[in-house]
Amino acid sequence: MHILITGAAGMIGRKLTARLVGDGKLNDKPIDYLTLIDVVAPEKPAGFSGKAEVSTSDLSAPGAATRAIAARPDMIFHLAGVVSGEAETDFEKGYRVNLDGTRALLEAIRAANYRPKVIFTSSIAVFGAPFPTSIPDEFQLTPLTSYGAQKAICELLLADYTRRGFLDGVGIRLPTICVRPGKPNKAASGFFSGIIREPLAGQEALLPVAESVRHTHASPRAAVGFLIHAAGLTHEQLGPRINLAMPGVSCTVGEQIDALRRVAGGKVAARIRRAPDELIQRIVSGWAERIDATRARELGFRAEAAFDDIVRAHIEDELGGKIVS
Amino acid sequence: MHILITGAAGMIGRKLTARLVGDGKLNDKPIDYLTLIDVVAPEKPAGFSGKAEVSTSDLSAPGAATRAIAARPDMIFHLAGVVSGEAETDFEKGYRVNLDGTRALLEAIRAANYRPKVIFTSSIAVFGAPFPTSIPDEFQLTPLTSYGAQKAICELLLADYTRRGFLDGVGIRLPTICVRPGKPNKAASGFFSGIIREPLAGQEALLPVAESVRHTHASPRAAVGFLIHAAGLTHEQLGPRINLAMPGVSCTVGEQIDALRRVAGGKVAARIRRAPDELIQRIVSGWAERIDATRARELGFRAEAAFDDIVRAHIEDELGGKIVS
Repeated sequence: MHILITGAAGMIGRKLTARLVGDGKLNDKPIDYLTLIDVVAPEKPAGFSGKAEVSTSDLSAPGAATRAIAARPDMIFHLAGVVSGEAETDFEKGYRVNLDGTRALLEAIRAANYRPKVIFTSSIAVFGAPFPTSIPDEFQLTPLTSYGAQKAICELLLADYTRRGFLDGVGIRLPTICVRPGKPNKAASGFFSGIIREPLAGQEALLPVAESVRHTHASPRAAVGFLIHAAGLTHEQLGPRINLAMPGVSCTVGEQIDALRRVAGGKVAARIRRAPDELIQRIVSGWAERIDATRARELGFRAEAAFDDIVRAHIEDELGGKIVS
Repeated sequence: MHILITGAAGMIGRKLTARLVGDGKLNDKPIDYLTLIDVVAPEKPAGFSGKAEVSTSDLSAPGAATRAIAARPDMIFHLAGVVSGEAETDFEKGYRVNLDGTRALLEAIRAANYRPKVIFTSSIAVFGAPFPTSIPDEFQLTPLTSYGAQKAICELLLADYTRRGFLDGVGIRLPTICVRPGKPNKAASGFFSGIIREPLAGQEALLPVAESVRHTHASPRAAVGFLIHAAGLTHEQLGPRINLAMPGVSCTVGEQIDALRRVAGGKVAARIRRAPDELIQRIVSGWAERIDATRARELGFRAEAAFDDIVRAHIEDELGGKIVS
């Protein structure tokens, strides 16, 4: 099986690559060819015995999408994109990368006239307030960010290209991924991770919103699991509604901090400093608090059961089990 | 006030133009300038004393959208588009005209850096089966035609451009417009009008679907009324959810025929011939049967009360009160 990953240098891209290399197969088929592309150079996949191609490419540039799929990958994980904060501050870049880049990929596939599987990472930012207490699968998409609008538009394209038989798409709406390892990125949701990650590493973290803010989270490990699971779903299982909200742990920022305190102690949790930020507050206030994800759960997608598990997953996967207490 | 109408040579475009010229004003402001564009030459508006510009233009062609708004129209009715049947048979043309054309218009407005009102005709084809008995305003958009996908994508763009302050958009999801005057067009919904229009003119009409098919209709007169009403709504009345499903008369094809018989007699209704068509059946089976349109009704949008009124509106507006009995 030949797998293409776009946005392969990103956090989820790197973890997905490592998981695929570790598994050695996908849907019970051996992986013998990996193509990794991103706007910054992805690393060569360590320990992979098959053919590996790594390239620096922006899918929205002329010809880039056609080159990306020239070898006709069987499975495409399309993760590339500009994050929410940047799509809000740079309107043109957001539409160019998130909409035009995705459309170029779909068009290149249509022109190549074969029918690969395409797993697309959408986001719960496709939903916009006001919400019911928990968002059902049938709820309308009224995003309140340009990022959310771009993701919703790409979902519609993916569904139409799938319906027309040009490809087999699955859109997975990721909840906020927490705890993101590494440095903060420009996502408006970055602080949800920062208030766990920085204190565990002995650093101070800034909290830009109130503790009462409720949100839905899944670990990077769970997100990679969603992608792998989506790759195994058949068209018959999915039906025409191929875009699915993923499950996650719904909790308040205060409950996140409580979980951190339970898992790592009060000294760690005390490293969080309140620093209200109006732009972040405004963006986050339009986001979903809780998601039913009924269809996704029925289709076998699994997230963590509690935020404590998310803290522990971070300590295991990123810190080698050690915290700075 | 300067008004631009795209798709001005189409049926709704012509009726809207006539209504605006007749009214002489919009939102209590005198109309002194009308720009009419379409891919086929629109007629000069008869009886209009102000400045009138008429041009043949495809908004998806390079520079066309910029030229269309060069004089900074205060109010833009964006009606231009490829109909559902054609968007399904010609994938590329549908996306080029319905998506790229609309996006070019929105981008031209953003580049011109002023904030006109933009009334966009969307469609209930943004919804896709399976449906609840009646579709609530909060229902998801899962179109089952490329036309519906294109309309849903343009709604998302319109809402995002509105949220960002580039324009003041209102998207109105028209139910099927019935009775369409003139010759049949390529819309898959064409027969809903044909089975009324042709018998009233003494002609045989083909019915490609079962009499049990239920659908929601509004007259051309009501559709023009929706557009005029939308032009008068303020941003404060609308809030961020600017795309609204319009009200209409929900009835079965059998009930349409009963209404025709009541208004025009059994001899007229007997001119309908059953001629099942699989493509039309398949497309129509994915369409909405009944729409709540709660927000639209609360905001003052009005359609006919019964299908008999729709038949009578056609006889009055198109046949000078006369039918071929």
